[in-house]
Amino acid sequence: MTKQHLPDHLLTGYRTFVEKRLPGDRDRLRTLADEGQHPPTMVIACCDSRAVPETIFNSAPGEIFVVRNVANLVPPYEPDGEYHSTSAALEFAVQALKVEHILILGHSGCGGIHAALSPGADPLSPGDFIGKWMSLLDPVAASFNSNDHMTSRERHAALERTAIRHSIGNLRTFPMIRDLEDAGKITLHGAWVDIGTGDLWGMDPESGDFDRLAIGPGESA
Amino acid sequence: MTKQHLPDHLLTGYRTFVEKRLPGDRDRLRTLADEGQHPPTMVIACCDSRAVPETIFNSAPGEIFVVRNVANLVPPYEPDGEYHSTSAALEFAVQALKVEHILILGHSGCGGIHAALSPGADPLSPGDFIGKWMSLLDPVAASFNSNDHMTSRERHAALERTAIRHSIGNLRTFPMIRDLEDAGKITLHGAWVDIGTGDLWGMDPESGDFDRLAIGPGESA
Amino acid sequence: MTKQHLPDHLLTGYRTFVEKRLPGDRDRLRTLADEGQHPPTMVIACCDSRAVPETIFNSAPGEIFVVRNVANLVPPYEPDGEYHSTSAALEFAVQALKVEHILILGHSGCGGIHAALSPGADPLSPGDFIGKWMSLLDPVAASFNSNDHMTSRERHAALERTAIRHSIGNLRTFPMIRDLEDAGKITLHGAWVDIGTGDLWGMDPESGDFDRLAIGPGESA
Amino acid sequence: MTKQHLPDHLLTGYRTFVEKRLPGDRDRLRTLADEGQHPPTMVIACCDSRAVPETIFNSAPGEIFVVRNVANLVPPYEPDGEYHSTSAALEFAVQALKVEHILILGHSGCGGIHAALSPGADPLSPGDFIGKWMSLLDPVAASFNSNDHMTSRERHAALERTAIRHSIGNLRTFPMIRDLEDAGKITLHGAWVDIGTGDLWGMDPESGDFDRLAIGPGESA
Repeated sequence: MTKQHLPDHLLTGYRTFVEKRLPGDRDRLRTLADEGQHPPTMVIACCDSRAVPETIFNSAPGEIFVVRNVANLVPPYEPDGEYHSTSAALEFAVQALKVEHILILGHSGCGGIHAALSPGADPLSPGDFIGKWMSLLDPVAASFNSNDHMTSRERHAALERTAIRHSIGNLRTFPMIRDLEDAGKITLHGAWVDIGTGDLWGMDPESGDFDRLAIGPGESA
Repeated sequence: MTKQHLPDHLLTGYRTFVEKRLPGDRDRLRTLADEGQHPPTMVIACCDSRAVPETIFNSAPGEIFVVRNVANLVPPYEPDGEYHSTSAALEFAVQALKVEHILILGHSGCGGIHAALSPGADPLSPGDFIGKWMSLLDPVAASFNSNDHMTSRERHAALERTAIRHSIGNLRTFPMIRDLEDAGKITLHGAWVDIGTGDLWGMDPESGDFDRLAIGPGESA
Repeated sequence: MTKQHLPDHLLTGYRTFVEKRLPGDRDRLRTLADEGQHPPTMVIACCDSRAVPETIFNSAPGEIFVVRNVANLVPPYEPDGEYHSTSAALEFAVQALKVEHILILGHSGCGGIHAALSPGADPLSPGDFIGKWMSLLDPVAASFNSNDHMTSRERHAALERTAIRHSIGNLRTFPMIRDLEDAGKITLHGAWVDIGTGDLWGMDPESGDFDRLAIGPGESA
Repeated sequence: MTKQHLPDHLLTGYRTFVEKRLPGDRDRLRTLADEGQHPPTMVIACCDSRAVPETIFNSAPGEIFVVRNVANLVPPYEPDGEYHSTSAALEFAVQALKVEHILILGHSGCGGIHAALSPGADPLSPGDFIGKWMSLLDPVAASFNSNDHMTSRERHAALERTAIRHSIGNLRTFPMIRDLEDAGKITLHGAWVDIGTGDLWGMDPESGDFDRLAIGPGESA
């Protein structure tokens, strides 16, 4: 065996996985490898290291199909675009895996949303990929930038939630999703997690409002 | 509070998270929310529900910044492209978060790789986003398709690993990454996980070979 | 004794008070009557029947001095104005009672805030007292009316919180309050209660942000 | 979550509310939040920390709509006045909530009444908001000041009750209230509470006299 080249913290974590979790997951993993994945739900989440869907939803292997991009955005349907990373994943989840649910999961303190609220800031690189990516929110970001009665954190949280609604709107520009939703075969969801407290807020599909899930004692979700 | 609209399996999982894991993570989450994330490592992984980086590496919140797209691909540097989801995440991780490691994490049984090995198959949708996305592997996929001496599973595993090396090559087309690697400030890694056994294979940066990490009882990594 | 003319529900409630609560409060009430009130805190709250400060704070008699007006507003200092109901109460609390804290307590679903967000609606009466009263928020309400990316409830919650900050700003236009605050003898607070869940959100005096008080198990306020 | 900034006694009280009262009120609060408030009765009470309507009437959330100002006063109808805090609340209660009862609730030991009986005293502030506010009682206060046959406490109690009748008279200067009363759709009430004993005295609508409610053991209201 050759010397390993992975970062130490990943090697340490992998050793813990092998000792603590793998024994209990082994049968399930073998079945999943043999029979393929059939996750009921696709989650579109952010790359942020603090907002991990599998942790928040305590997901088992095979349970959720997960796209992670900056600010958990969905671009509109553009069949002639190039390298549609998120659109390809959507197509795979909906057409091949036939997921029944798509959840857009946003979170507090999102760096991509921060970039969208700082339109005058210097780009990070000559290519300014972040600027181009976040321009997907141009249709909605301006009205938050111009409101100086909200605190900075309130503006961020408001755009984080508006962006979730905007992405759900973009999901509906995909003919395959619109048709399945009309036929009652797929349901679109939004949620937002407060990374400092672990509180999860679910979106009401009628109003678009977000409500904190009541999970404490005497509360029932 | 209004009725919750999330899928039941996510609500159940969230309740377990709140009861079992959140109490132990709370202090860390508050600090992460207040001080921002400083993950040392970015992981580019697949959307597959069976290959979850945070599970495999037993990661704590804040530990890894994670992009997940179909087949864990990195496109080449193309500053004039549109909506570069993965490039935007790379830029954010490298320029803003200043990660020290980037790991491309592939896995067995990858559906995207399977699509790349089935070039004649009907596209999943008129837009054929999967076909366009997987065309990122066109420079390397053809030689596997024309090789009928390998079994199907061998071809898949071989392209899964070749794709990791190809994406690492694409990472080096980004000037910011090439410069940082030359200066010794960032290290690029590859790994491949066998989802049926949980075995992790690390890539040797010199030869490009993959070796299984020896982690079991009596083994040492 | 003559026939009583109070509404039945108040008579019933008073009988419960006499039987259940008065016996335990009697000594305290006698002392409060003899020695006068010395509440440490003044609360400016809304008239809304669902947001009762003494209930939310489980207050004992003598504990909080309470103004209640529509939307818990404080007008700016205007010594030449007429019938300044709220200003008179402020003066009494600060100068005569020497309270150490003033809390502006807002709440979800506020009807006055709703009126401020419906500037074109027909006035309720020829005098349109609500319209005049809520015009105290004119300096801040417009920017929320023009933002149609937020849901109706989000706009309401945002203005409910902005109005609290605005009223705290107005408190500081009263020379007596500004001087006492500068001398460290009085502290101004904001809070917002979600009437549907009982969740209380406290305002950070530096940033103006509102945070939910963590009171559940494993949480500490 | 950031550090909380509310006074300690309110935090302690809120914790008791969450643990002891909220569980039993939760369903009612959710319904009230969803369906809005429909209180049958409006109460105009004093800010005094010892005379809390919800405590005296053991009111549930949603039961009474409450204005609290110094000395529980109602100004006369003046559509051209500015910032009519109490008039705005009246308008909201009568026009929007369509309450069936309005109760003016006075109490013993009222500081505002004391100020009205001390017309020569130094104003509390240059603005003298208390003096202006209590001048609403000028039409009735003078005859008590010039009556030196009553003890001080008798003068106070007499003006406290006279003020209630005066405010009921002012209520009838509002066209909306006068019309509804004539149509039998609203009823005006007066009451006075002795804060040292908890005794409640109801006003006879014909004579204007106040009678103690007989509620004790062996008494019936």
